[in-house]
Amino acid sequence: MSRMTILTEADLRTIVSLDLDAVACMEAAFEALATRAVAMPPILRLDIPEYRGEVDVKTAYVPGIDGFAIKISPGFFDNPKLGLPSVNGMMVLLSSRTGLVEALLLDNGYLTDVRTAAAGAVAARHLSRPESRVAAIFGAGVQARLQLEALTLVRPMTHARIWARDTAKAQQAARELTDKLGIAVSGVSDAKEAIRDADIVVTTTPSTEPILQSTWLQPGQHITAMGSDAEHKNELDPAMIANADLYVADSLKQTRRLGELHHAIEAGLVEADTGFSELGSVIAGSARGRPSPDAITIADLTGTGVQDTAIATFARDRAIRANAGTNFES
Amino acid sequence: MSRMTILTEADLRTIVSLDLDAVACMEAAFEALATRAVAMPPILRLDIPEYRGEVDVKTAYVPGIDGFAIKISPGFFDNPKLGLPSVNGMMVLLSSRTGLVEALLLDNGYLTDVRTAAAGAVAARHLSRPESRVAAIFGAGVQARLQLEALTLVRPMTHARIWARDTAKAQQAARELTDKLGIAVSGVSDAKEAIRDADIVVTTTPSTEPILQSTWLQPGQHITAMGSDAEHKNELDPAMIANADLYVADSLKQTRRLGELHHAIEAGLVEADTGFSELGSVIAGSARGRPSPDAITIADLTGTGVQDTAIATFARDRAIRANAGTNFES
Repeated sequence: MSRMTILTEADLRTIVSLDLDAVACMEAAFEALATRAVAMPPILRLDIPEYRGEVDVKTAYVPGIDGFAIKISPGFFDNPKLGLPSVNGMMVLLSSRTGLVEALLLDNGYLTDVRTAAAGAVAARHLSRPESRVAAIFGAGVQARLQLEALTLVRPMTHARIWARDTAKAQQAARELTDKLGIAVSGVSDAKEAIRDADIVVTTTPSTEPILQSTWLQPGQHITAMGSDAEHKNELDPAMIANADLYVADSLKQTRRLGELHHAIEAGLVEADTGFSELGSVIAGSARGRPSPDAITIADLTGTGVQDTAIATFARDRAIRANAGTNFES
Repeated sequence: MSRMTILTEADLRTIVSLDLDAVACMEAAFEALATRAVAMPPILRLDIPEYRGEVDVKTAYVPGIDGFAIKISPGFFDNPKLGLPSVNGMMVLLSSRTGLVEALLLDNGYLTDVRTAAAGAVAARHLSRPESRVAAIFGAGVQARLQLEALTLVRPMTHARIWARDTAKAQQAARELTDKLGIAVSGVSDAKEAIRDADIVVTTTPSTEPILQSTWLQPGQHITAMGSDAEHKNELDPAMIANADLYVADSLKQTRRLGELHHAIEAGLVEADTGFSELGSVIAGSARGRPSPDAITIADLTGTGVQDTAIATFARDRAIRANAGTNFES
């Protein structure tokens, strides 16, 4: 018999939100990835082409963290026709010491949303100019909104522009974000205009070809690309990687295969074995962050199992403190 | 919001048992593996050497089955020191059409025990002589007991011998099985004696070197090896594979890498690309089963994700009919 806690999405929304604690949790996760003997096996992937479905299973063990998450992320792209969301998911948290299931986190992807946005804040904190005030956000979905919110936690943002393929959606998101965050947010239709004089640029789209051109960039800008979590996705002109003053990966092993870096390697603009820094090394101080106020910096974030393990144990700890969830024996 | 059913081990023990329905379910699973475009990605494996822990995650999608299982199987071999079982686990059943979680099967490994034993019955049904009466079982654990029970479902067994490294355990298992199955079961200390005149031999041990020698075999015997589910495990003398009249794999891709076959290939006794049959092809009639009453046949079973998907949907269907489990919304 073992005892576990079941946490629903509603439970998790009550106890975990995008705040400085979540950002600190992600910062520690990236630092662990760079400095400890983390075990992070390749993603298990199952495709169900009949229903335009795919499932990723990720996990990672971090020495010193007493639990590890196994995250199940299905994406079924015909679901909207049935009135269901495309993307979904849950996490199972197991004890690192005994392998017993400690918690079932039925989050429908909520914890992934939070940890992905918090990673954006971590990248901005370590790579953007401290006085950054203007953001350009590409995409108008949940992650676009959360990324802007994440920036406001770590930088004194006052203005933001939202670009999306559908300008009406960009404008709608801008109105909601103005209300929620209390800063001036506008929806724009021209991508080049969107990034002019922006201090921080964040891309969150499912694009499969570049939406940002290298020639548009200005000195001092920081770009975080987080849409590219699969081989075919691509938001940045590959020349941006080659031309940047500093390129930082969440996991270099992953960005060489999945991230924006992989397109720059394929285009022959970057050598496949170039030894770029990882975000965790910058946090730990073993690699250099922003080299100068005028430098152009890029963070290439593909999403890691370490982040899932970190947010899942964070949620479990919060649940214990709040006495949240339903206990179950089996 | 999605709705799922949570089934505990106690729920599952009430609705699923090792019976002819479970055997038919496995038979259909193996046939599907051989005849349909099954998607079965490589196993995801995480090792936590600090605590002698390992976790395997398996999945498989079978066209025509409306759900697919993701099975999480932890093995933490220091657990007995803490008074906990080494092996554990659960399955998540998702809809093949939408990717939504339909059921959480908190089985602690019970469904794996049942599906593994049922696979032994399927192998015996298709490869042993129909008049088989005497069994030799190697090992005295849960799976050894279930394998003998499985044989009684498909063959007119009257006698069995149990061999284990610890003869006292073999004798204890024999007493319990005599009571449970109503056939004559004895515990023996000599492996060669155990298989003399046995019609069916089943090996279920965690051995890492052969416990059965090829020269001990007699015409007409069928051997099912199911202990070998990892590279280092090995129960059969590799010469047995080379000398057998018929060798059948559950999944040839897996047995070449993990099963008894892989040791025969490593020993240079079998070519790596030899095109052996799979159990599903024998069931489907596209490959030949037992060639003659005197033939020596071997089934090499490493365990497949297709079996997990089959038993998980079987359990879900039984739960619906029995109105078992607890419904949960998230």
